[in-house]
This record gives sequence, structure tokens and C-alpha cells, in this order.
Amino acid sequence: MQLISYPPTSTWESIIERPTPSFEDIEQTVADLFKEVQSKGENAIFKYTELFDGVALKSLAVNEDEIKEAISLVDDELKQAISIAKHNIEAFHQAQKTPRVEVETQRGVKCWQEKRAIQKVGLYIPGGSAPLFSSVLMLAIPAKIAGCEEIVLCSPPNKEGKIHPAIIYAAQLCGVTKIFKVGGIQAIAGMTFGTTSIPKVFKILGPGNQFVTVAKQYATRYNIAIDMPAGPSELLVMADESAIPSFVAADLLSQAEHGADSQVILVSTSISLVEKVQAEIKLQLQNLPRVDVATKAIANSKIILLEDNQKALDFINAYAPEHFIVATKDNAFFVENIQNAGSVFVGNYTPESAGDYASGTNHTLPTNTYARQYSGVNLDSFTKSITFQEIQPEGINNIGKVVELMAEAEGLFAHKNAISLRINYVEEAKNK
Amino acid sequence: MQLISYPPTSTWESIIERPTPSFEDIEQTVADLFKEVQSKGENAIFKYTELFDGVALKSLAVNEDEIKEAISLVDDELKQAISIAKHNIEAFHQAQKTPRVEVETQRGVKCWQEKRAIQKVGLYIPGGSAPLFSSVLMLAIPAKIAGCEEIVLCSPPNKEGKIHPAIIYAAQLCGVTKIFKVGGIQAIAGMTFGTTSIPKVFKILGPGNQFVTVAKQYATRYNIAIDMPAGPSELLVMADESAIPSFVAADLLSQAEHGADSQVILVSTSISLVEKVQAEIKLQLQNLPRVDVATKAIANSKIILLEDNQKALDFINAYAPEHFIVATKDNAFFVENIQNAGSVFVGNYTPESAGDYASGTNHTLPTNTYARQYSGVNLDSFTKSITFQEIQPEGINNIGKVVELMAEAEGLFAHKNAISLRINYVEEAKNK
Repeated sequence: MQLISYPPTSTWESIIERPTPSFEDIEQTVADLFKEVQSKGENAIFKYTELFDGVALKSLAVNEDEIKEAISLVDDELKQAISIAKHNIEAFHQAQKTPRVEVETQRGVKCWQEKRAIQKVGLYIPGGSAPLFSSVLMLAIPAKIAGCEEIVLCSPPNKEGKIHPAIIYAAQLCGVTKIFKVGGIQAIAGMTFGTTSIPKVFKILGPGNQFVTVAKQYATRYNIAIDMPAGPSELLVMADESAIPSFVAADLLSQAEHGADSQVILVSTSISLVEKVQAEIKLQLQNLPRVDVATKAIANSKIILLEDNQKALDFINAYAPEHFIVATKDNAFFVENIQNAGSVFVGNYTPESAGDYASGTNHTLPTNTYARQYSGVNLDSFTKSITFQEIQPEGINNIGKVVELMAEAEGLFAHKNAISLRINYVEEAKNK
Repeated sequence: MQLISYPPTSTWESIIERPTPSFEDIEQTVADLFKEVQSKGENAIFKYTELFDGVALKSLAVNEDEIKEAISLVDDELKQAISIAKHNIEAFHQAQKTPRVEVETQRGVKCWQEKRAIQKVGLYIPGGSAPLFSSVLMLAIPAKIAGCEEIVLCSPPNKEGKIHPAIIYAAQLCGVTKIFKVGGIQAIAGMTFGTTSIPKVFKILGPGNQFVTVAKQYATRYNIAIDMPAGPSELLVMADESAIPSFVAADLLSQAEHGADSQVILVSTSISLVEKVQAEIKLQLQNLPRVDVATKAIANSKIILLEDNQKALDFINAYAPEHFIVATKDNAFFVENIQNAGSVFVGNYTPESAGDYASGTNHTLPTNTYARQYSGVNLDSFTKSITFQEIQPEGINNIGKVVELMAEAEGLFAHKNAISLRINYVEEAKNK
């Protein structure tokens, strides 16, 4: 890890910069593939599934028999673990329900706000080396609680034309309505336009590689919303001499094993803690199955030594980490004053991996400084808020004059007229 | 207005389709201009302000003297009206504050969610024929309530190098921290990259023409969030024989005066109401100053006659209107079952223009079917939610095994290790 000691504030911008992959080559591929799926539908999907996933499918939907088979293939111990994780994630997301907000802003002028589910959502779950069934829980559970009517899940098939059983198991358990064996750009295009079997959805959520990321952003040209732009996963640990070095090392490595492009940062006010963590990393690294990946990510990672907690906080807010672990003598200071972070893990016994799987918080979080302005996936990611108002004749009298004046000042006389007509009508009714 | 009687469901898709302007020519202009602002900063902004707005400025920021002058130019009656509107908008948006959500999902596993303000936001207010100071209220008031530290406002200067006094007045009243005389693509580029005087922001909100819309979408390539994609304004009125025809006509016309591309739709179950509204429109249209614009919009607009309230509801949910006025014998049915709408206006005395200015609800709303998945601007548009968790040694024992099993099943052993180390540590501490 690269040690940067007491960097002046003027250098922070370059320190916090993430690698920016060039999306321009990918964009043309995505545009072409979208066009083909739009015009040829499911046939284009079969074609690209054969090309990219190496399997010729006859149908995309996972059928009842395949679901039964998947259920039988997941062992009971894992089922039990998934069930506990589901309980916790449900409890935390259920608590995020917001009541209707209602205000009578003036007598006779009642305004309210209600959240309603997005009717059709699409969840993308990557295939590849790690079957991310945990992401199924993180996306399908809040979708179900929100009340989404159609919850579509797409995940790429392997060479045998199958999706990992744990993904199918989690999907059926959490209320996914349809599962499709389709991945990559063609999955996103399929959910954008709809095909014979894949429903068109209104919002697409979920992680993915850079092809999926560019495809999701491209889908927004076609009236689709997405959860957030995605980038490589990130962890920033803030630790002082009260932290336990082996825990800090383990946490940094758990981020590093995600991929060579993972962003791993240690911020500290204690050089002695830093030295102990470095020694621990060397020790633990050797025993990891993904040692190659983790070694590369650790080599790219940084240790930032800073003067005091205030400086550290300023740096962390500037960095805006996806995951932020704080293990210091004054955790409350960081919890209170953190402005930009996806999810915060407080204290020595709160590793990121707890939140990745089972504590109840969501693990779909903003990366690449997006924690400055994006929330991680939460219950509201599956709803939109609608405002309502109901005005009584008394209310029109109370705010009518205000609307007339403002509309006139903006030069919008038909706006004014819609009020004037009603004021006169109420007046005439009174005089009758 | 084009009358479409009892259209079969199969034809709805084409009826609800909005005109889709081609953004492709604009995109290259936007890309070029962004590149120039990125490399040349403020000089590029001056250049394009001269080119597009026809005025050579020496500085972009509105200074104290200009603010004082603007305050003196707004007459007292309008100031009073703005003050009442501000009170109502504040009351409704203040009520949208959500408390911290906290759940102990398992003993020793505490998860919570808090909303924190987006630190720097940029508000765009169009210039042009109508000085939209009401949009200043709609954007700056919730930004201030949310606690945004930097609230930047950009609006194009007129040929004299000035912004309309009502816009400046509203901006200073509502807590905007900096006002800049810059509009169009160059304003969005300026807030995206930051210049000598314009701060770089994290999120850009506000209405605009198609150049601004494309520029906002282009800004998302540079880690900027935007409120929502925008299109021409829309109103759908659902009215039966209990509605007052002159009110319905006035409401449709208030939408029509926005522009020839405004979307104006009347849905009804009553042919007699439809006929009365048509007669009223003819009558009222003649007296409008913007008669040309409104006439064009009305000519493009549609009346949809449907069999019953259920059919009407289905159509309205498919259309997903930005503004939805309902004036029927059974308003409760529509209020309860509307899924897709930006803002709903209930009953004969609730014109859209009330919500446009002064009732308290926000008028920055999703158009072009985006009400299916986007909220209008609300307090949460200026915050992001951050999750936190704090686990005690007892909690690690309670969920540790679950995390270990799931991490192992996903092939992520360093994730597992971060838990195992802690479980062992707790165990050893107990045995000491």
C-alpha cells in the first residue's frame, strides 16, 4: 500500500480521484445492440446470448421445474442463513416506510404526499465467478415491501444454460415474479424495450460490469430510470490506535478480493497503527484463495496519514467512500459529521461484510464519489412520491389573490384566469 | 381538440405517446461546449453568453448592489404574494422531513438510516418570455430546509446583462448563496466543472429548454446528478358531468398557454360534459394574450371519451400525466388508485395553477411518462440517505455464522475471514 503522510489539502483532489475507464468504445457496442434488440426482439437476445455466454437457449424464462431443481440444490444450512439475512433485511427496509405527509397550508388548502410503488422493476444480477445471490436479497426484498407488481430478474446463464441455484432460490423466496436467463447488454436492452417473454420495466437496478453499467446509462434514453451509476467497489477505513490491527487488515482485504480495481483506503492519525496493519495484511494475504486479485488491489491502495480527526473527517467527506468503517476513540465525532458516504460501519466489531450479507442494511451503494449526492438502494428506490391537493371554496379565497398576482407577474394569464373564474363563481354563489 | 371515442386498449400506446424531439444534433453542440468550458473555464462562458444572449459581461456573479436594486424594483403587492407562497411551500416541504430510522435487527446489531443534505446544489432558472421566479421558490426553499450549504442559481441575462428582478428577489429571499448571470448549456457546464467564480456543484435541478435538458443529461457523465429528465409540460383532466365546464376549459387553457408543444388531455365518461367544455374553450381562448400559443397547443390536444371510471383510471395510469386534475362524482376512487402521476388536483376548486404557485406543493414534476418511476422535486431531492450500523460482540455471535456461510457460498473468503477473526477474538476474550 502506498503511504501518503500528511498530504496538504491542495493535493487531495488528485488523491481521491478514481480511475476513470473510457466508456466510449463500449458505447457504440451498446447502441448497436440496443438497436438490434429494439428491432428484432427476442431473436437478437438469443443471438447475443450464444455469442457472449456461449450457450444456445430455446427459451429465456426460468420455468417451474428449473425453480424446483434449484431449490433442491441449495443445502439446508445455506437456506437457513439466507432466511436469517432475509429477516434482518426485511426488518430494516420495512421500517423505512414513510407515512403520508399532510399539511393544511392555509384554511381550505390541503396538501399531501404519498409514496406509491413503481409498478414494474427489473433487477440485474451478474453471473461470473461469484454467484451474487446476496444481491438478489438486497434488491428483491425492498421491491416486494414497496409493493412493486412486476419484479423481473435477469442473470446470465452459464455454458450449460443455467443460472446458479442460489440465485434462483433467493429470487423465488423474495417474491421475484419472473426470472430470465439473460445477461449483459442484451438483458438491459430486453428490459428496456420488452420482448416476447421479457416484460418492459420502468426502472432497472443492480450491479454489473462496465458493459452493464454503460447499458444501464444508455437505457435512460428510453424513459427508463436506473438506481445509480456504478463503479468498482470501495472501502475506506478510518482507524486510530484504538483499532484492532488484524480486524482492519481483514476488512481492507475483504474489499481487495472483489477485484484488482477495488478502491481500498486506510486513513489514520496513528503511524503505529498503520505499521501494525501493514504487517497484518502481509500475514493474512497469503492465506486467501483470491490472493492474486487481492495482491493487485492492495498494491493500488493507499494509506493516508493525517494530523487529527478533523483533518481525517474532511478528507473522508471529500473522498465520499461507498463503505466507511470507523474504529477510533471518538466514533461519535465521525458518525455525527460524516456528510458523504454510502454506508457507515461503526466500531471494531462492525466489518463491512456484515452489511454485505446479513445485518439488514442494503449493500447496493454509491461508488466513485456518488455518495455526495446519491443514496444507496433503499425502500424509496422502489417508490415515487406523488403530491395531492384539495382546495375548498374557502381555500380559493385564501390563496386566490396570491396566485393571480404571481401568474400575472410571470405573464401567464390563463393561469390567472383559472383562479379568477373560481373566485367569481364562489362570490356569485354567495350572493344568490 | 381531437375527440377519440372509446378507443380499444390496443390503441392506447399510440395515444399516450409524446412527441419525441431528436436530441442528436444538440448533443454534439453540448459535447463541444462542455469541452471548451472544461478547458477554458470562465472565458468560454463569457464567449457563449455574448453569442447566445447577446451581451458581453465582465463578471458573472450578481453583486450586492444588483441585489439591492432588484429588491427595490419588485412591487410590494408581489412581495406580499411571494411571502405567502413561500410560507405555504415551506410548511409542506418542512413536513417532509423524515426521522432517523433505527432497527435492532438482531440483539447487538443496530442499523440506522439518516438523511443528510447534498452539500452543493445548482438551480437553473430559465429566462425568456416568462420570468419564472416561482421556480426559484420551488427549488431554493426545499434546498434551504434540507440544509444544503451551497445553493447556486444560474439564469440567463437579458440584452442589458440583467436577470429579472423578481428572480433575484426570490433567490435572496429563499437563501440562494450565489446568483450568476449565465444561462443555457454554458450554465450547466459551468456548474459541472466549476469556474473562477461559479462553484462546482453535486446536483443540478430545474426546468429548461431542450438545450438545457440535453446539457443536464450530458452533465451526468461528469459525476453530476440531476433532478429528472424534462419534457414539455402536461395536464390531464378527468371530468364527468359533475365537473364545471368553464373551470375545466380554463384549466386546459392554462396548460396550453405554456407552449405549442404542451400536452393537454381531457378524459371523460360524459359526452355532454365534453361538448360543454369544447364550447367554453372557444369562448375563453379569444380573451387570452397568448392566444396564438394556446390555439396551437389546443389543436394538438386530445379528448378521450371512455366507458367508465375504471377504464378512465387505467388510461390515466398508462398515460402517467405530470399534472392530473380530477373533478368527478367519485374523486376518492381516483385518488386511491392513481399509480402514475406527478401531482394530483382534487375537485372543482383545485386548479393546477394553485399548485404552480402557492398552495405548497412543488411544481417541478416528471413529464413524458416519467411519473411512472420519478418523484417530483421534494425535500428528499436535496438529501441522500446514509445507512449506519454498529455491531456489538454479542451481535457478531448472532449473525457471524450467517455471514460466514453466505460469503463462502459466494466464494468470497476474505469477507468470511473478517467475521471469523472477530468471532475468535470474542471467544478468546471470554476464555481469558
